[in-house]
Amino acid sequence: MGEYSCENEYDAKGAYLCPGFIDAHVHIESSMVTPNSYARVVLPQGTTAVIADPHEIANVCGTEGIWAMYKMSNMMPLWVYFMMPSCVPATPFDHAGASIYADDMKQLAQKSRMLGLGEVMDYVSTTNGEETMLDKLTLFDGRVIDGHAPLVSGKELNAYCVAGPGTDHECSCFDEVLEKLRAGMSILLRVGSAANGMEELLCAIADAKLPTKNMMFCTDDKHIENILREGHINYIAKLAVKCGIDPIDAVCMASYNAARTYGLKRQGAIAPGYRATMVLFDNLRDFNVIDVFAMGKRYTDRSCDIGHILPADVLNTVNMAPLTKERFSLKASVIGASENNGDYTVKFPVIKTVPGQLVTKLVYEDVHFRDSEFVPDRRFDKLAVIERHHATGNIGLGIVEGLCIERGAIAASVTHDAHNIVVLGENNDDMMLAVEALKECGGGFAVVHQSIVLARLPLPIAGLMTDAPIEEVLRKQRALIDAARLVGAPEGSDPLILLSFLALPVIPEVRLTDEGLFNVTNMSYIYKN
Amino acid sequence: MGEYSCENEYDAKGAYLCPGFIDAHVHIESSMVTPNSYARVVLPQGTTAVIADPHEIANVCGTEGIWAMYKMSNMMPLWVYFMMPSCVPATPFDHAGASIYADDMKQLAQKSRMLGLGEVMDYVSTTNGEETMLDKLTLFDGRVIDGHAPLVSGKELNAYCVAGPGTDHECSCFDEVLEKLRAGMSILLRVGSAANGMEELLCAIADAKLPTKNMMFCTDDKHIENILREGHINYIAKLAVKCGIDPIDAVCMASYNAARTYGLKRQGAIAPGYRATMVLFDNLRDFNVIDVFAMGKRYTDRSCDIGHILPADVLNTVNMAPLTKERFSLKASVIGASENNGDYTVKFPVIKTVPGQLVTKLVYEDVHFRDSEFVPDRRFDKLAVIERHHATGNIGLGIVEGLCIERGAIAASVTHDAHNIVVLGENNDDMMLAVEALKECGGGFAVVHQSIVLARLPLPIAGLMTDAPIEEVLRKQRALIDAARLVGAPEGSDPLILLSFLALPVIPEVRLTDEGLFNVTNMSYIYKN
Repeated sequence: MGEYSCENEYDAKGAYLCPGFIDAHVHIESSMVTPNSYARVVLPQGTTAVIADPHEIANVCGTEGIWAMYKMSNMMPLWVYFMMPSCVPATPFDHAGASIYADDMKQLAQKSRMLGLGEVMDYVSTTNGEETMLDKLTLFDGRVIDGHAPLVSGKELNAYCVAGPGTDHECSCFDEVLEKLRAGMSILLRVGSAANGMEELLCAIADAKLPTKNMMFCTDDKHIENILREGHINYIAKLAVKCGIDPIDAVCMASYNAARTYGLKRQGAIAPGYRATMVLFDNLRDFNVIDVFAMGKRYTDRSCDIGHILPADVLNTVNMAPLTKERFSLKASVIGASENNGDYTVKFPVIKTVPGQLVTKLVYEDVHFRDSEFVPDRRFDKLAVIERHHATGNIGLGIVEGLCIERGAIAASVTHDAHNIVVLGENNDDMMLAVEALKECGGGFAVVHQSIVLARLPLPIAGLMTDAPIEEVLRKQRALIDAARLVGAPEGSDPLILLSFLALPVIPEVRLTDEGLFNVTNMSYIYKN
Repeated sequence: MGEYSCENEYDAKGAYLCPGFIDAHVHIESSMVTPNSYARVVLPQGTTAVIADPHEIANVCGTEGIWAMYKMSNMMPLWVYFMMPSCVPATPFDHAGASIYADDMKQLAQKSRMLGLGEVMDYVSTTNGEETMLDKLTLFDGRVIDGHAPLVSGKELNAYCVAGPGTDHECSCFDEVLEKLRAGMSILLRVGSAANGMEELLCAIADAKLPTKNMMFCTDDKHIENILREGHINYIAKLAVKCGIDPIDAVCMASYNAARTYGLKRQGAIAPGYRATMVLFDNLRDFNVIDVFAMGKRYTDRSCDIGHILPADVLNTVNMAPLTKERFSLKASVIGASENNGDYTVKFPVIKTVPGQLVTKLVYEDVHFRDSEFVPDRRFDKLAVIERHHATGNIGLGIVEGLCIERGAIAASVTHDAHNIVVLGENNDDMMLAVEALKECGGGFAVVHQSIVLARLPLPIAGLMTDAPIEEVLRKQRALIDAARLVGAPEGSDPLILLSFLALPVIPEVRLTDEGLFNVTNMSYIYKN
């Protein structure tokens, strides 16, 4: 600031120098690459700090997973801060790899890059004052506590705020933003991989001239191919300006406001004594990055060449009980139907997918059974959720309508939030092979067609991430999608993402866990396998 | 927030409920009453939290003084937060009661109400990277560090900010505010007892539509009679609105902004989970207080009835070497003038006061000497600074023009920043008596006229404060002023305040310390006694 001369001078040629952008809430694991690879993708977009909630790896590896993420993100030009995952497992119905209680958090809570408690998704136990939840909130009292309270409102919201959460990144409409701001919360406006109507919301905020000082940006989950294509936090800033938000306010939302809310000292502004972590943009409308400076050094492809060691704790995490083909038999008797020989139909509960959405419908359909066992066809596929953390041998089996798999199977170990192995298929042989293919490489995604593994993305780190080069990851992802289409997955939805959420017992209306078919609406099992 | 019913309901009758106001920087000792009495004065004005820098008592009692203030302000409806005094003594030329180094601060730094490092007044040692100062800045790295940098600008300001200070309360003009905001500082707008042109500055801020999110209010030093007469932080809010600042912004400056800057969690707003510490104002123009609620309880005269014990460490702090009248002789030889008998004049350096201001002028005048000893007259008074902490026997003697004391003396132990005993008089007998009067009561203020103590305000706590009832303090203060006028102090300035600053070797141009006459401009002694 001011006239100085030094050894390395840089001519910005009239471009706009902004503080480095901050992603206020992200699950790095959802990028499927290590923090180091993730940094290589987001830094060129001008994001120089992220506040990461390692909730996914924590569900697989417990606190060892969090330590691993902490170590794997050390000493990088991208500053990775952490929030302690608050809800592991996500629900009492999830059989995840670990449970984390307040006592388990104490040591990690003292780390310098650990800012506070991560998104408190379980608002029911929070507002009910459930003891294990209160212990966590108490441990982080006085620090930032992230909320996650979609459509929570009125007295319920008041109770939630009293318990501790001070931010929310789930607002989907203007009134929700307004009510939560008035409740003293900071609002994280999210544009990730999932479409969420953020442009409409940004326009409403601009039209109402709502003060933006307590608003900031986040991606939550955004795949690397999307980041490479459209940008990261700079993309949200661009949307905001397009929607009528003042460019200076947009820059503050992308940097300063997050730094203040999360207590990041000497960050979020360009000023003496602040970190010289800055981005040069072409203009404050498109936010195309010309150059990035991290801690005073110009960012280049080699800036991230840091030899992070993969902690052994997060490798070889697929620990399944021995599996036989017979375990894939879905019997009519699970719903109390009588066992019969020969072909017949049974009115059976079915998970019906909704094109382009993550919600599902619970429907009862006449499905084909032979010798008391469900037989998939072009309309109805078989879904299995296989416990893979503690070799319990649990397998949940169900029927899915809408994904149209033929002569093949798709399997995944990235399956929120318990990250068990989920496999969808038309025949037991291909399903078995797909699971074996994942087991062999420590997890990931696989598509099988007529006894051949068509495509596979190995994710050996907790079954969630890989340290393979980004180009290789992108190529294999494309191959997976192509293979999924080949075995019948319809256009319009990403079949891999859909699969990843079919076992999450908090999204309406019906899900499959490793125990059986779960009705999310009334939080109870329709049947157990 | 919302419709609730409860046992005690209160009808606000359309008045304005605001978060409790916050004084972002104050020296409580300057009120001359204990934190408890101070609370009784400011709470009815709507101030519910103050951020106190116990710099004055620290200069007398060291860290024990800070502990005492901490204990004396515990469990009150007024929340007293602290900043660690950073410059004790204020300069190397001050002979204060204690020196505080980084090592001495470590234990106190961990206390929950200790927020950070107090105003770093010594900007020279700060920008020079002097080691003992850097140790303190390092100890409080990552926490709030208050600045104090009047008119520091350009590269000097940059260096100062790099060292750590992130706030400033010394801005006197718009350009200074703008430059310091741009340097990443938060600005505390101060309206205390001293007139400082704040209305003009507030109008300039309003006219320029400068964002106020990093601005807040403070009093620094404000006497209780002024607070009772015109208000406290609510008075600054009133001025701000009068000058054109949006009333909502003014309320934020008076509450929310300070809470955010100083990291006061769950404070500064009315929202679920925030402290129910609120003020009911008649309107957002006059800010007259209707009622105050502290932690959900309505404030009454009895809310502060808490039996704080006065720590023994801060009592009986006047520790002078035995004093004889002869010590008051100011010899012409101190400036190298030859000793002579009889009456004659000597061109002698004189402290010339400026009406209505704290600055002084260094002038050389022909003053009356008899038998080599200075003889005061209607124009020239004698000033003495007597070391009173470690009984060193130091006495500085000088000549003051402009206060016109006749047949009397005024003495004080509230004398920034070292708080030695300062006495101004026309004859040695009355000066001696005034000092003895202070010694007897543990410090304070005294006015003597013709061998009679006309008025005295005992300040037995560190020679700075009293726990006497507020009405008694006010009555004695008025009596002191009346008595000072009687012995000749001119109208237009408060002679007691003037006296309090005559020994502070940082205000231009010339001061007297317990060692001798000090030229502030070139930071060196003109003569030593």
